Amino acid sequence: MSSQPEHPTLLIPGPIEFDDAVLQSMSHYSESHVGPGFVATFGETLSMLRQLFQTTDPASQPFIISGSGTLGWDLVSANLIEPGENALVLSTGYFGDGFADCLTTYGASVTKIDGPVGGRPQLPEIEKALSQKKYKVLTVTHVDTSTGVLSELKDLAATVKKASPDTLVIVDGVCSVACEEIAFDAWGLDGVVTASQKAIGCPAGLSISMFSGRAMEAFKNRKAPPASYFASMKNWTPIMQNYEAKKPSYFATPSPQLVRALNTALKQILSRPLSERFQRHAEVSDRIKRAVRDLGLELVATKPEDQAHAMTAIYLPETVKTTDILPKLSGKGVVFAGGIHKAIAPKYIRFGHMGVSVTDPARKDIDKALEALRTGLAECGYQKA
Amino acid sequence: MSSQPEHPTLLIPGPIEFDDAVLQSMSHYSESHVGPGFVATFGETLSMLRQLFQTTDPASQPFIISGSGTLGWDLVSANLIEPGENALVLSTGYFGDGFADCLTTYGASVTKIDGPVGGRPQLPEIEKALSQKKYKVLTVTHVDTSTGVLSELKDLAATVKKASPDTLVIVDGVCSVACEEIAFDAWGLDGVVTASQKAIGCPAGLSISMFSGRAMEAFKNRKAPPASYFASMKNWTPIMQNYEAKKPSYFATPSPQLVRALNTALKQILSRPLSERFQRHAEVSDRIKRAVRDLGLELVATKPEDQAHAMTAIYLPETVKTTDILPKLSGKGVVFAGGIHKAIAPKYIRFGHMGVSVTDPARKDIDKALEALRTGLAECGYQKA
Repeated sequence: MSSQPEHPTLLIPGPIEFDDAVLQSMSHYSESHVGPGFVATFGETLSMLRQLFQTTDPASQPFIISGSGTLGWDLVSANLIEPGENALVLSTGYFGDGFADCLTTYGASVTKIDGPVGGRPQLPEIEKALSQKKYKVLTVTHVDTSTGVLSELKDLAATVKKASPDTLVIVDGVCSVACEEIAFDAWGLDGVVTASQKAIGCPAGLSISMFSGRAMEAFKNRKAPPASYFASMKNWTPIMQNYEAKKPSYFATPSPQLVRALNTALKQILSRPLSERFQRHAEVSDRIKRAVRDLGLELVATKPEDQAHAMTAIYLPETVKTTDILPKLSGKGVVFAGGIHKAIAPKYIRFGHMGVSVTDPARKDIDKALEALRTGLAECGYQKA
Repeated sequence: MSSQPEHPTLLIPGPIEFDDAVLQSMSHYSESHVGPGFVATFGETLSMLRQLFQTTDPASQPFIISGSGTLGWDLVSANLIEPGENALVLSTGYFGDGFADCLTTYGASVTKIDGPVGGRPQLPEIEKALSQKKYKVLTVTHVDTSTGVLSELKDLAATVKKASPDTLVIVDGVCSVACEEIAFDAWGLDGVVTASQKAIGCPAGLSISMFSGRAMEAFKNRKAPPASYFASMKNWTPIMQNYEAKKPSYFATPSPQLVRALNTALKQILSRPLSERFQRHAEVSDRIKRAVRDLGLELVATKPEDQAHAMTAIYLPETVKTTDILPKLSGKGVVFAGGIHKAIAPKYIRFGHMGVSVTDPARKDIDKALEALRTGLAECGYQKA
């Protein structure tokens, strides 16, 4: 039994429902950010990220910084690329476009390849683009939270290695880390940026990232100083290295409560094989997508291989409005999110299925959500054709 | 009685001890960042900041963003000044120097006036500097956490208005908001940036700020786009305005738990007159400084008018090392901080006295700390000369 008060089940693609122990860690008594207890916890948390990202290369560098997931874009844009250098951005929705805006802010020259709505850019066009210009970084949104489109990282990384080996492969993993397979070393990734409040299962407020030794070298070799102060790798790298070595260090005050909660969440995740966790998310996702299709509805992510395993973006029937169905669901104790992809925003809803709602067998969140969706649509006058 | 487990009393100059209700808000169940419950809470929290900063001018703009206090420097440096424009930085320690570094990162041309160690730049030299060059912004650290030196904001702001009326007056209030008087409108301030974990009494993880209508105009009139993405006022201003109008809005996911905790902390602060709160901090500070002098010790902040009311930086006797006294204090259940001002770091310790440790009459934190300091020094072999 949860010790949380009764509340609507949050099934948006982040923040997600949190485990009791994680929430309890949020109210940890106050402690010094440079005291031995917190330093040990922060250090352990950084080391656990290496396991989560499946990297054993000691040159890989984890970062945990107070901020939103968006801060990860600044970390990449202000440190790994210099003004005038080229970035190739693969966009599968709202968040790919945002990453491009961020890169532009810091002076990068951005070429964007847009997937069709509900799809992703294909390898041949990416390969072609890489052959036409020298790109310092390529960025890809692993799962675009606006569409639920999944990008295929492994083949993509292999393609970049072949076509343009010097290009850094940077992944926006905000909606994929801890629910989709990410083999950082094996696939040769150079950076993954994410946030705490999605599949990692810790309240919002932390930017979490991992960079390869190659990315850290590119940073060290840059000619211009970092273009941000708060998001400067120069300021943060020694701090992260000191904490991981269990030595106190200061640049800006971290949040002991959020880091304690992240520590608890990571311990829960790493207490079982990651492969089992990814498998569980895939199974539940398959069940949800089948149920949605059985209702006669279409998914925003068109092809099965482009569909994320921890969220589903669902087109509404033409007769049903977002502003009708979301309050109906809410009345049944289930919170879904509306659409945010500009081209289709009023036409679809988003269902997040990650973390404890999927992995905790005691919870009936998914069954409750599917039942609410079925009856809610019926109450909106929808009948399957 | 506190519901927190027994723990060492944290009396560093932030993070501070937190009230039970604030910590309980940190473990609020998960909710949507765009749902009506959280939107109302966030909106109310922004409005309460207007009271805390004593501004009734509707053009004043509050911001609450996930990040450390340091992010406030980026907010100023990336939005209110353009590359090549001049900034006059008044430094009273480590944090004034940091603000200068941040401004330089974003291309400002920085002139820094350093106070002597333990003192502050004086008005005549500031006036002279303002007469020699056109400065877009002047920054001042209200209380430098590294030295406990208090700057005199009211007279300073008046001096700037007279000598250089177009210069924006920007205050680093990280260690002063909610413990030192700040009359935003009455003194004609243009910006105050702070953090959650000091006198406001909410766990670390939020950058909190207030900017004047004049500052917001200066931002709107800038020629270059903002030089940061995550710290862009262009990205955040509409979000803050929408939330305060109780309308959902999205740029980057805020932390519902931290904002809930901030809401609780601000309600506690605003339940009593602010003047009473400032008075209480001043009384307790006077008592502490008297007790420290009675022990035969010297303060880093030399003159009484330069001494902060919510922290005290104390020179150790020559025979006592930081690495001796801090563990002794810790053994007595009291956590003080070491020195961080480069010129004198190993020679002094810092005692934070703000928030519930000062305002909650049920707590005996200050008596306990003074007694621990007295006996701790004696155990280190110190005797008053």
